[in-house]
Order: sequence, then C-alpha cells, then structure tokens
Amino acid sequence: MNKVKVAVIGASGYAGLELVRLLVRHPGCDLAALTSLEYPGLPFSQIFPALAGIVDLPFSQESEEEIAARVEVVFTAIPHQAAMGIIPRFLAQGCRVVDLSADFRFREVGLYEKWYQAHTAPELLEEAVYGLPELHREEVRQARLVGNPGCYPTCVVLGLAPLAQARLLQPDSVIADCKSGVSGAGRQVLLGLSFCEVNDGFRAYKVLEHRHTPEMEQELSGLAGTPVKVTFTPHLVPMSRGILGTLYAKLTESRSEGDLRELYRQFYQGHPFVRLLPPGSLPDTRNVRGANFCDLALRVDEEGRRVIVLSVIDNLNKGAAGQAVQNFNLMMGFPETLGLETPPFAP
Amino acid sequence: MNKVKVAVIGASGYAGLELVRLLVRHPGCDLAALTSLEYPGLPFSQIFPALAGIVDLPFSQESEEEIAARVEVVFTAIPHQAAMGIIPRFLAQGCRVVDLSADFRFREVGLYEKWYQAHTAPELLEEAVYGLPELHREEVRQARLVGNPGCYPTCVVLGLAPLAQARLLQPDSVIADCKSGVSGAGRQVLLGLSFCEVNDGFRAYKVLEHRHTPEMEQELSGLAGTPVKVTFTPHLVPMSRGILGTLYAKLTESRSEGDLRELYRQFYQGHPFVRLLPPGSLPDTRNVRGANFCDLALRVDEEGRRVIVLSVIDNLNKGAAGQAVQNFNLMMGFPETLGLETPPFAP
Amino acid sequence: MNKVKVAVIGASGYAGLELVRLLVRHPGCDLAALTSLEYPGLPFSQIFPALAGIVDLPFSQESEEEIAARVEVVFTAIPHQAAMGIIPRFLAQGCRVVDLSADFRFREVGLYEKWYQAHTAPELLEEAVYGLPELHREEVRQARLVGNPGCYPTCVVLGLAPLAQARLLQPDSVIADCKSGVSGAGRQVLLGLSFCEVNDGFRAYKVLEHRHTPEMEQELSGLAGTPVKVTFTPHLVPMSRGILGTLYAKLTESRSEGDLRELYRQFYQGHPFVRLLPPGSLPDTRNVRGANFCDLALRVDEEGRRVIVLSVIDNLNKGAAGQAVQNFNLMMGFPETLGLETPPFAP
Amino acid sequence: MNKVKVAVIGASGYAGLELVRLLVRHPGCDLAALTSLEYPGLPFSQIFPALAGIVDLPFSQESEEEIAARVEVVFTAIPHQAAMGIIPRFLAQGCRVVDLSADFRFREVGLYEKWYQAHTAPELLEEAVYGLPELHREEVRQARLVGNPGCYPTCVVLGLAPLAQARLLQPDSVIADCKSGVSGAGRQVLLGLSFCEVNDGFRAYKVLEHRHTPEMEQELSGLAGTPVKVTFTPHLVPMSRGILGTLYAKLTESRSEGDLRELYRQFYQGHPFVRLLPPGSLPDTRNVRGANFCDLALRVDEEGRRVIVLSVIDNLNKGAAGQAVQNFNLMMGFPETLGLETPPFAP
Repeated sequence: MNKVKVAVIGASGYAGLELVRLLVRHPGCDLAALTSLEYPGLPFSQIFPALAGIVDLPFSQESEEEIAARVEVVFTAIPHQAAMGIIPRFLAQGCRVVDLSADFRFREVGLYEKWYQAHTAPELLEEAVYGLPELHREEVRQARLVGNPGCYPTCVVLGLAPLAQARLLQPDSVIADCKSGVSGAGRQVLLGLSFCEVNDGFRAYKVLEHRHTPEMEQELSGLAGTPVKVTFTPHLVPMSRGILGTLYAKLTESRSEGDLRELYRQFYQGHPFVRLLPPGSLPDTRNVRGANFCDLALRVDEEGRRVIVLSVIDNLNKGAAGQAVQNFNLMMGFPETLGLETPPFAP
Repeated sequence: MNKVKVAVIGASGYAGLELVRLLVRHPGCDLAALTSLEYPGLPFSQIFPALAGIVDLPFSQESEEEIAARVEVVFTAIPHQAAMGIIPRFLAQGCRVVDLSADFRFREVGLYEKWYQAHTAPELLEEAVYGLPELHREEVRQARLVGNPGCYPTCVVLGLAPLAQARLLQPDSVIADCKSGVSGAGRQVLLGLSFCEVNDGFRAYKVLEHRHTPEMEQELSGLAGTPVKVTFTPHLVPMSRGILGTLYAKLTESRSEGDLRELYRQFYQGHPFVRLLPPGSLPDTRNVRGANFCDLALRVDEEGRRVIVLSVIDNLNKGAAGQAVQNFNLMMGFPETLGLETPPFAP
Repeated sequence: MNKVKVAVIGASGYAGLELVRLLVRHPGCDLAALTSLEYPGLPFSQIFPALAGIVDLPFSQESEEEIAARVEVVFTAIPHQAAMGIIPRFLAQGCRVVDLSADFRFREVGLYEKWYQAHTAPELLEEAVYGLPELHREEVRQARLVGNPGCYPTCVVLGLAPLAQARLLQPDSVIADCKSGVSGAGRQVLLGLSFCEVNDGFRAYKVLEHRHTPEMEQELSGLAGTPVKVTFTPHLVPMSRGILGTLYAKLTESRSEGDLRELYRQFYQGHPFVRLLPPGSLPDTRNVRGANFCDLALRVDEEGRRVIVLSVIDNLNKGAAGQAVQNFNLMMGFPETLGLETPPFAP
Repeated sequence: MNKVKVAVIGASGYAGLELVRLLVRHPGCDLAALTSLEYPGLPFSQIFPALAGIVDLPFSQESEEEIAARVEVVFTAIPHQAAMGIIPRFLAQGCRVVDLSADFRFREVGLYEKWYQAHTAPELLEEAVYGLPELHREEVRQARLVGNPGCYPTCVVLGLAPLAQARLLQPDSVIADCKSGVSGAGRQVLLGLSFCEVNDGFRAYKVLEHRHTPEMEQELSGLAGTPVKVTFTPHLVPMSRGILGTLYAKLTESRSEGDLRELYRQFYQGHPFVRLLPPGSLPDTRNVRGANFCDLALRVDEEGRRVIVLSVIDNLNKGAAGQAVQNFNLMMGFPETLGLETPPFAP
C-alpha cells in the first residue's frame, strides 16, 4: 500500500498520543513529523515511554513550512485559537488537514464567536466539513479541511441523529446528560484533575455553559430541519476514558421501542462503527475502550412518547483520534476501517 | 446520657456495617445485639477487621424474641420481604423499629405490590412513617415504625421537594438522572460487581425499571398535591460510595435562580443536614462521603423555565444508615445530629 | 499468509478473552473454535459485548475430538488439573498445544505434586517446554506441548535471568515483592474481588504460600546451575491489569549499575519484547498495558553488592495470552512479533 | 473539659485538612487559627467544601506573633525548611509545637543536612522529641517541640521495633518495600499525580534515594543499639490513602512465628493504636483508613530465619495528622485516644 506522509501537530497531549498510537500501525500512513510546544527535540518515547521502541521519533524542530513541504496530510491536535492560526498556512502549501480543535466545526462564524472568541480564518468555514462520517461521509471524502467533532457532540449527535432526521424529536425537549472520563480534560496539570481530587468521587461541571452545546445543536438542527435546543450537563467520572450520554427526548409521534430500533438500524446500515445493541442490553464505556465504536441502546416509555437513548464512545478514540483516522481514511480513499481494527481493550 | 439498647438485624451488609460504625460511637446508644444470617456466632470484627478492638461482639445466636426482650429499638438492615416477616414480632414485643428495607415505605399497599410482591403486614403501612426527616420530622418523633427511605429517593426527593411543595414542578417533566457508587448494590457477590467489571467503566442499569421510582413519585406527589411522574435512570460509577442526582424539571412559572435559591433556603432552614451550596458551586459526592449531608445546587435556564438541580448524598450514610440514626435521634428525643458529627471523609 | 486453524479451550475467562482479542487480528490465525464450560452455545460477543461484530462465533458444543479433528493448534486456558485431563487427547490427535495452566510447567513431577496435586500425565512433562521464549526459544520452536509460564514467574524470571546465568545471584538472597492487578485472579466471582472490597485499598496475600514460587525457583536454578530460593510475596493492587515485581538480591561479586545494564543489554539482545529502560527511568505497569513487553530497570547500592530490579508486565498479555501467541508464532515459524504489534494502551 | 487553643500552620494541604477534621471534633481543642500561604482570608470551607458549616473559619491574615500570642499549641504542616524558619519564634513566645515536617525528626544535624539542606535551628534538635509515641511516649509528654514522624518511617519502624529492641534483627538485612496512596505526595499540582497518569497503574519511585530512609535507620538503630541499614523502596498505588510496608529481615536467631507474635504482643501492650492481627490474617490498608491504627501481621519461613512483617497505616492519619493529635494528647495530659475514636472508614 502506498503510504501517505502525515504530521501530527500537538502530539504530546492525550489526543495526540492516541493519534500516534493509531497512525504508527496504520498500513497507509507514514508518520513523518510530530510536534510539541513543550518538548521540541525530545524523543516522543521519552515523554510517552509506553511507545519506547515503537515511536522514538523526536518532536520536530522544523518550521511549519518545512513540515508542510514534506507531508500530505496534517492532523492538528492543539487548542482552539492556536489551530486556526496555523491551518491556513498548511492548506496554502497544499496539505489536507484534519483539525481536532473546535475552530472549524461551525458553519456560522457568529455561533463560533459567541461561544469561543473572534475567528481569524472565517473564510475557511464554508469549505470545512464537519467530520462526523456517519452524517457527512461524502463531503469528508472531498474535504481539504475537516473539523473533527468534539467528544461530547459525537456521542450525543450519533445518539439522536436518526430521531432528528425522522422529524421525531420535539425540538425543545432534548436533554443530554453526559458522563466523561478524565482524559477528556486533556493532559493538563490542574489540581482539580489530580488523582486525590477525582478518585472515588463524582461531580457535574459547566452546567448549562459547556462549549460543546452549540455543536450538538448545529448538527441536530441540520438533520431536523428546525432549530433543536439541547440542555447539556457534563459530568466527570473517576475513570480514564469513555463517555456515556443518557439522552432524553420527547417524540413528536408515539413510537414503540421496536419502531425506533428499526429506524436506527436503517440509519446506521453501512456504518461500521455504530453498534446498535440487542434488545435488553445496555452499553458500557468499557466495551468501546480503545476503539472507534459508538454503542447505542434505546428505551421508550409505556406511552411511546418519551425516549431514552444510551450512547457510549471512547472520548479519545471515536471522540477524537479514532474519528480523525476514520476521516483520514475517507479523504485518502482507504477503507473506512483501515488501521482501526484493534478490538476494544477489555477487561 | 441514658443509653438506649439497640439491635441491628442484618449487620453484615454494607448498610449494617455503616450503622454499626455510627452506633458504636453514638453517645445515646448501647449496641446490644447484632445479627447476620451468614455468620452467626462469629465476632463482628472477624468479618470486618476494620472494627477490630472496637466491635468484637459476636453475631447473636438468639431468637428474635430473645433479642426483642432486651432491646428498645431495632434497626432492620435486611432485604425487603424478609423485613416484613420479622418486624411485626419486634413491634408486638414493644420495640420501636427503623426498617432500612423497602417494606414500610409505601402508603398504599397496591403500589408496593405492583413493584415488589405481596405484602404480608399491610396493616402496619398506615402507621409506618416515611423516614425522611426533612419532610416528616414530627411524625418520625412519634413513630413506632419508620420506613427508612431508599438511597436514590433520598437524593431525588430532597433535591426537588421545595419545588414540588411550591407547586412549581410541571408534574410530567421530571427526569432524575442518578449516578451511584457500587456499595449501593450491597455486599453482594456478583460478577457484574467485581473490580475488573466495574473499574474504569460507566454504565446505566434498570432503565425505566428501577423500584425506587414509585418511592420518589409518592413523596413528590404528596408534596405537590398532584401526581408527579419521575423518569428515573440509575447509573453505576466506579467508586465505592456516593450518589449524585442530576434532576431536570420544567417550572410552571418562570423563576430566576435567585428566586429558587431563596425558596430552597427557606424550605431547609432548621434542617442541619441539607447544605445549599453558594452560587457558582456544584456538589461533589466526595464532599459528603461518610456523612449525613445532602448538598444541593441549582441552575435555571435563561428563560427561567427549566431547572437543573444537583443533589449529592452518601448512599450508605444519608441514603441508609446515617438517616436511620437521624430517625432514631428524633424517636428518642435526642438532638437530631447526635452521633452524626464526624466531618465528611476527605480527601 | 497461510492461516493456522486454532481453538481456544476456556475462552470465557480473562486470559481466554485476551487470547481471542489477539488471535482474531492475527494474520496467521483462523479462530476455528472457542469453548466455555459455562456458556456453551452462546455467542462469544454475548458474554463479551466489547467484541460484538468482531467475534460473534458461539462457544462450541462439539466434543474435544471433533474440535481436534479440525484444528492444528489448541490453546488451553482452563484451570490446572482440568488442563492435563484433556491435553493428552489433543496431542494424540496430532494437535500442538499451548497450555496456559500450570500443568506442564514443571520438569519434575514431584515439585508439581508438592504444590498442586497428583499429576495424571507425568509422561508428558519431559517433552513439554517451558514457554518463556527469552530462555527457551529454540525448544519452543520444536515443541508439541508448551507450558505457558505463570504471570508472576514471567515477571520475576525475566527480571533476574541475566544475573542468574552470570552466576551473580547469591542463591539464598532473592526476594520477589510483586504487585498485581485484579485480573490476575481471573474472572472469578468472589467477595474479596468485588469492587468495594478492592477499591482504594492494598493488601498482600498468600505470603510464603503462593504456587508460583517453585516455578520461579525452577527457572532461576536452571540458569544459575545451583538451587536458587525465592522469597515471594504477592500483593493486590486496585487496578485491572499489570504486575510490577520489585526484586532484591545480593550479588556474589561487586558490580556497578553500568556493568549490570550491559549484562542485561547483551542477554536480551535480539529479544523484541524485553525493553531495558534508559538510566534514571523506572517502569510503570501502565507502559506495558495490553502489550507483550517486559520493561526492566535496575539499581545497585553504593557498594555494588545489592541489586534492585524493577520488572513490569501486563499479567494478561506477556503474563498469559500475549506470551502464548509469542510461543505460537515460534511454533509456526512466524515472526515472533506477529499479531503482537499493537502499542501499549495509554493513557 | 478545658479546651486548649491551637493553631494549624499550613492547613490547606492534605495533612492540614486531616488535622482540621480531627481537631474540630476533639473535645479538648479549640481551633483558634488556621493559616495558608495560598488562600489567606478565604474561608477554610471554600477550599474544602466538605467542611462547609463545620469549619468556616477563614485562613488567618495575622502575623505569626499575633497567632502565637493567642494559642497554646501550634501544629506546623508546612514543608521542611519553611518549618524551621518559624518554629523557633513560636517556641520563643511560649507555644508548644508539633511539627509535621522533617525538620525536627533527627538527633544529629549532620544526618539531616546530608539528606535535606543546612539546618537553621540546630540548637533545637537536642530538645526535640521524635513523636512516635509507641517508642517515646514519656519524652513526648514533656516535650516542648515534637518532630512528628514521616509516614513511611511510622509504618516501617512500628513494624520492626520489637525485633530491633530484642536484638533479633540482622542489621544489614532489612528491606522495606513500601506502597503508598497518592495523598502521600501532598496536595501538589503535578502531571505525574494527575488522575490519568496514576489510575490503573503501579510504579516505584526514588529507589534507594528517598529521604525517609535515614529516619527509619535512626529509630531502628536506636532500638537495636547498633547501626541498622534499611533498603527502602517506595511505590505509588492508585488509591488515595494508605501505606502498606512489606518488611523483610533476617533474624539473628531462629524463632517461630508464635515466638515473634508473643514478642510483638508484649511490646505493644498498652499501646492502643497498634493492632496485632490474629494468626492467618493479613492487613489491608482499607482497615485503617481514616484512623490512627497500625495493623501488623508477620510470617516466618520454615527455618525460622527470615521474617516478613506486614504493616499498614493511613498515611494522613497515623502517618501524619492522627499521630500529631496523639502527641498533642500526650503533651496535654489527655487520654491518648481522645478525639481519635472514629472507627476506620469502610467500605
């Protein structure tokens, strides 16, 4: 297989690490450059000794131009705002980009600027594709710039997309009660993320204020053809990886659980990473750990009016790096699952 | 202080252990008998070596009649159905009873029998008091038989009681998304509760089917004066203790966060175990670990129409044993906080 | 690549699960049969939903003869005693066997019978090869029957082998203080392994009594050419996977840390799964999670008389299933690392 | 009871928090001042919301002189070097001091300066008492300045003291393989202590370099009447609290397990916080969590020549704050267990 030269910009965070873990074994990929603001010149495996002997490449000290000159695809795994500062230059040199930050996920600059800050490359927003392949597979294939979705939006949008598209979602009824492992906060050094402050505890955070809300609303509204409002509550679970979303909605028309299962089955037919669980089963974040799956189950109340969808992903994989590789595969014409075949890590 | 002789029936489960931990240091209590189906004759501290030198009393081999003859108050920490089999005999011998099972929590036998099984002592239901002191303090004082609330209902009812009583709760809008530590399942030996099946994972269980639902509905409906329906989803958190309830409801009238805080403040005035957090703070189960507190916070959306209440308790303490001691204190005329003063266990 | 048909006998334990996870993606392997005493006829993915869509094969209901007739290699991941009951029949039908139990790890039947029970197939012990490829690679290549090492012995023997072979180990000075994750106890249902009994705690078990002791002594004595005694203390860590061995020994002659590092480097040259850490680094079980590596570091005291070796493995991988696949690769003439390339799972 | 006014200098670390938790319920203590370098003026309960409504006192903004003027006893829970800077001034104003840092634990200034740095108050070393009450109870009663022991030395010295005093310890044979929960590192903000870097992993650190080594050697040598060398290896366990020491030594004379149990029983007679476990039992850090106990068990090899002692404490309690309160009780003439009666926190 012809190998595509790629760079990972920001490879010393957790999403970067997961990308490197996936890409180093990807048969269509040649890891040509890794960068890190904090560790230039040091070997990747010095920072992540788990990869000793596997990825000993040092973090690059080249300029972005030099990197752009020798790679074909760039993954940016750096904070929003920083991402939009460098991506136009990679594009200008002919690279294609998968951006894991929030900078190119929004169609309307106003929405981005309401929740984040001023956008310095708004002209790229129209072209950028929201990289949720289960909704935008064809656009991704052609994209020069993919805005890789946030972890929570991936979980929530995949959980509700079939209902939204079928116009079954009451647009003001959606509640997304989500629970995430600690790696969702990144490889940050914060007291609140230290072991003794997280272990054996559970808490909500950023109630009604989390920036992933508009992303969920954009995608669900697009599918529903009408503005959908999401009440989103994120929580922190004392585990390293995984998101479970418990999604509540009212239906516009009464439906049985069987009806909805069939709707979901059809919607996700041909999408290898969404697994609709058999009736009676409920998802566990442990079943998708280290893999690109989204596992779904649903329950309907007696009257068929209220639905509860359970949706789980690995926040670093389908919620970040795995999905980025899935997008990369589509962009390169590779099989969608290439390099993403390792089974979930259990127990 | 005159010490009351008490027995703990079923002292080898986790709620029993927590009761014993509290009662052995309670200045108004003399631990006269402990029982266990599994370990008759063995010293308590052989089963729970943490209590070595503190509670070495063996599990009793006496009959219930013998125990009843020498104690004044009985705590029953055994499964439902078993509890109602023996409680009438303790009452008949003049004991007062705090029952930690579900058998005496319901006012209507039909509701109990719909969710559990046939009730063998329905004549006691009218007399039994639902032991949530923040709602039923005066009845508890006089009670001969207290039905100590379930852990989830304690968390949810305390979280929503002020809204229900103020008729602010839209009765069909309540969603209780609750997350519990593993001790909530008791000291059971089940594959699904083993370390390797729980660690580093998160899952929902018994969606729309959990038996604590009717208990929540009974109490909230009683306060609201109209039937309140609760959509309840329990989840399992990889931690030992703690419940966090994220409670969603629509308001019948628009209210600001300040309005609701004031409502809560007044409702819980004089109730030492409910702590309304300062604005901007959110509760963490770690802050109530090992203590009888319920910590509350609330958020209201922009329109003042939708409220999110965060409620945390320690499932074994305020959700079981601590609340049982609080009820005991009320029944005996002790200060409500007696024996419950140890600060939460942190970090 | 020509695929070898294999069976996994006892695929519903944790070692079995890990074997299946590895073998299903192994390019030289065709998973032809899985068995389980507990779940005959049920799909593998019903028991392990993590593998849904990946391994849906039902646990076989065939006889051992039927399975033997259609596979070339059998992995037995069942308890000792059970293993030796069936392995002779697989061999008799021409299969080659990698046995993950203790039944074929000992050269002397007396040693086995002292620590376990009567051996029912002692005639096979001479032929069986102890499957630690770093010590017995050539014998493994030819073996019809491999006794796959225990998890603790793998950790300890790899940690001390270079010293033993160089006659530097004082034979009565070896202490192996080992710490294991909970999956080392297997997928058992025991109160002592339940989440609430393990979480946030640490304990030793089977002090001076653990059955892995004679296995360590056999291998180290073989290398040293003199009987080596091991004082072995296993401990339980509140984590799912991983073993760290802290190995103490006195040296027969004074050596510097540099001397010993060079000795280890040479010993493990050409062995792709042993990683000697750079000076100053210490191993972490997290760095080998899900992989077949053994990471080693060592420290020597000022006088050069006492050495401390730190050795880590993943107990389910290099300590069980990964090593079994490594042995399989050698037996089949495959590259030793085939199917074992997935980087460690981090974070 | 007459209440003693006390100050806690450095009350915003974990040892400080544990001290405050204990002292606020101590019947002989009046918490008159708390200080924190980081949070002057803020209420204690704002930093530790677990204590809301219990300790709302703000961190003092007074000078040390002002504090000294109004308290009788000072607990210093600040880093070494900082402690010796202020303690002389508290003493000069007539306060008695329990110092939780390392600054006053050593009898010889040279030993301190070899492992730490220059000592600025060496004249106090002779007067200072090493606050391990099981060894120095009488001196503590009279002390003006107590050097409260380190967590690891408490665990190790209590584990080996009877052997040392009986001259049974071969002085060059002692190995202390110790495992600590993460709170042992204090309330520091370090990447290596973040949840994702600790969870589900196990590692050693500071092998042969940890500063608690000379403290162990000082006390054991003192008891043995001859220099005892300790090979000490600390490890990090993914749990919040607890230390388990696995202590290996050779005996100078052969002894049975029964002999040694009797020796330990006599040594610790009258010491309420040391619990020698019954034969066959092994300690678990969970059994001492939140309490001032040290639980001990021992095993002897067949020849009666090598002993393994298992010793557990809660590093924040008996390893820091609990022991400080025990020392305080002795200094004040209170019962040794006063304020330390809360049973261990389980499960």
